Amino acid sequence: MSNIEGLLKQHGTPEKEVYLDWENGSVVDKEVYKEMKPFYLERTFGNPAITHHMGWETLDFYMKAKTKIAKPLNVDPQALALTHSFSESNNLAVRGLAKMNKKRKKIIVSEVEHLSVIHTAKAMFNDQYQVEIIPVSNDGTVNLDILQEKIDSDTLLVSLQTINHEIGTIQPVREALEIVKDKDESIFFHTDATSAFGRIPLDYNKVEVDLATFNSNRILGPKGIAGLYIKKGTKLKAIYEGQLSVEVLAPDVENPALLAGFAKAVEIQFEKFDEINNQTKKLRDKLLYGLQTSIERTEINGPSGDRRAPDNVNISYMGCEGEALTVECSMNGIYVSSGSACTSRVLMPSHILTAIGRKPEEAHGSLLMKLNRLNTEEQVDYVLERMPKVIKRIRSITGGIEL
Amino acid sequence: MSNIEGLLKQHGTPEKEVYLDWENGSVVDKEVYKEMKPFYLERTFGNPAITHHMGWETLDFYMKAKTKIAKPLNVDPQALALTHSFSESNNLAVRGLAKMNKKRKKIIVSEVEHLSVIHTAKAMFNDQYQVEIIPVSNDGTVNLDILQEKIDSDTLLVSLQTINHEIGTIQPVREALEIVKDKDESIFFHTDATSAFGRIPLDYNKVEVDLATFNSNRILGPKGIAGLYIKKGTKLKAIYEGQLSVEVLAPDVENPALLAGFAKAVEIQFEKFDEINNQTKKLRDKLLYGLQTSIERTEINGPSGDRRAPDNVNISYMGCEGEALTVECSMNGIYVSSGSACTSRVLMPSHILTAIGRKPEEAHGSLLMKLNRLNTEEQVDYVLERMPKVIKRIRSITGGIEL
Repeated sequence: MSNIEGLLKQHGTPEKEVYLDWENGSVVDKEVYKEMKPFYLERTFGNPAITHHMGWETLDFYMKAKTKIAKPLNVDPQALALTHSFSESNNLAVRGLAKMNKKRKKIIVSEVEHLSVIHTAKAMFNDQYQVEIIPVSNDGTVNLDILQEKIDSDTLLVSLQTINHEIGTIQPVREALEIVKDKDESIFFHTDATSAFGRIPLDYNKVEVDLATFNSNRILGPKGIAGLYIKKGTKLKAIYEGQLSVEVLAPDVENPALLAGFAKAVEIQFEKFDEINNQTKKLRDKLLYGLQTSIERTEINGPSGDRRAPDNVNISYMGCEGEALTVECSMNGIYVSSGSACTSRVLMPSHILTAIGRKPEEAHGSLLMKLNRLNTEEQVDYVLERMPKVIKRIRSITGGIEL
Repeated sequence: MSNIEGLLKQHGTPEKEVYLDWENGSVVDKEVYKEMKPFYLERTFGNPAITHHMGWETLDFYMKAKTKIAKPLNVDPQALALTHSFSESNNLAVRGLAKMNKKRKKIIVSEVEHLSVIHTAKAMFNDQYQVEIIPVSNDGTVNLDILQEKIDSDTLLVSLQTINHEIGTIQPVREALEIVKDKDESIFFHTDATSAFGRIPLDYNKVEVDLATFNSNRILGPKGIAGLYIKKGTKLKAIYEGQLSVEVLAPDVENPALLAGFAKAVEIQFEKFDEINNQTKKLRDKLLYGLQTSIERTEINGPSGDRRAPDNVNISYMGCEGEALTVECSMNGIYVSSGSACTSRVLMPSHILTAIGRKPEEAHGSLLMKLNRLNTEEQVDYVLERMPKVIKRIRSITGGIEL
């Protein structure tokens, strides 16, 4: 028996289970799974670049699927590149742009971007690029005054998330874009919309960003496929090499099964867009403010009201340690992540919680819960009933002192 | 109606269909699909890096799946990195190695490597690396004398395919490895075993390569996942940036559903390894020599007998043009690719056919057919019956002259 098997046996399977760790892993929608089936098992498995009947069928399907995905973004399907993940999209946006546009050498990103943006920018710093990190307010909103100060004639790219993945801050993308383009039309603007796609309206025909990352798995589509919107005229170079294919920016990404699932997930999410997001928002508020009022010494991370993502609940519980918290939650059948989804198994506090001014002990005692249309009010009630006991128990073990 | 829809309508659906374009697209095995189902729809969808019950379950599954995949390679499961595609694995092997080992500046690859190896090496040429391309004989076998000449104390890496994806040449990997390591133990050796995994025995405990690329989709596993074997002590750096995760060399690659499918495909392929490959070899010989004898003015591309991959049939038909050939085959329900899988839709002849000395007109008139355990003798008989008519018709259109 492996160590993990032992751990699982000791843990047991809780009577009731509520999954709220959608940031880190997800099933797909049943309809999405059904949609993928023929591409996995039946005739429509050609390569869209090959000139025979099955290749053409696949190319035809490919263009129709991209049309479905482009619709809610209000863009030309031809402007969508597919990638294997939002991380790859973010890498492609930053590094792929720099590869094709070598004159300018400054990259500006916010302090709360996903690590796939921040680390890519920082890695380029070694390649003689200048990287500016724009700070955020204590609810995670980017400081537009500092952004305005930092942009100059050497600026290649500004990259600013639409919604923060960890604390749910909706960023002022439209205002930031205006500031950037007013200063210099030829500065490129990228937004990582991974956590925003399907949650808030996005219209890149109106808000004319140059590049936008979006994702399948966050809306109950399959993992292994994501996208990058590339405004006409914006030139990128692939970040890895391969054969010539339909997707020139990601050789070998063509995957009819995953694309079928992605397109179906988009259809479902946007058909019931208002219904889904109103319901999620209701559950979010019940959970967020319910936890805050029933448990002492808590701090909500991120903004309130309309400037918060409809699916995001993030609270710091003083006097608690993150891993102990997630394990105790797990014993109660509540599956969540701590500190940062991105920094689990690492004893560093989340760079996002640090950026909004949380002390390490506050960051470590934080829990991220996300909600989607598979969650129910009854589940939220269960979490509200259990969490006070979870926190009490963890505090009793540590003595409740600030760690 | 789109142009493609028109094309499909005009083409019609043939009465009988034989799919031989496995190099470019594939269904998955029915058992593989079944294996993926719970990971798509049920509880085991955690992230293996997260500390809760579902995360541990996923980590436990993850390690067991890797153990299954490592077994036929006879290596430690810990030595396997997962990637999204064999192209990514090849990029990671070449560029990831160079990023961590900056002292040596020469990269040696064969002339018939996959474009994801050749283009990666050539792209690095711009970064002050020296790249040597080793020629091959007229059956595609790498020239070991020239390899021996070219390796020196500045050589970082030699990359040599195990089996050529297009003409099926089984390369003398063991001999090449000996030559390299005899000259200098610290030169790294990578083999792209994408077309070899599941086709010929591989044992990296005996043939101690430093790096080996292998693939899921070529053995009827899902697309979107592949692997790179990394011998203990070989240090690589990721080729793109992202969050900290279980797979440090491919942030965001964790995909329990695809991994479950990959592991199942490996199990099936290696459980019946001899049976599958003997049967495939029998069909290959029937098809290869059957076509050669029943159609005039043909040239087999690649070696004969035991030095040819068990699944590979590649023939040049003089006086024919590739796209016309694939379309005429398609009208007869025979799905194949031409010239090169990698260069379809491009009017350049395959770099591999050029490397073995084929003139452009010979390369353009070539067809690649691959066979796997889903193909039957009855299908091969059908292809043998139809192909003489296909070739006759194409030659009658072009006048049969050398194009």
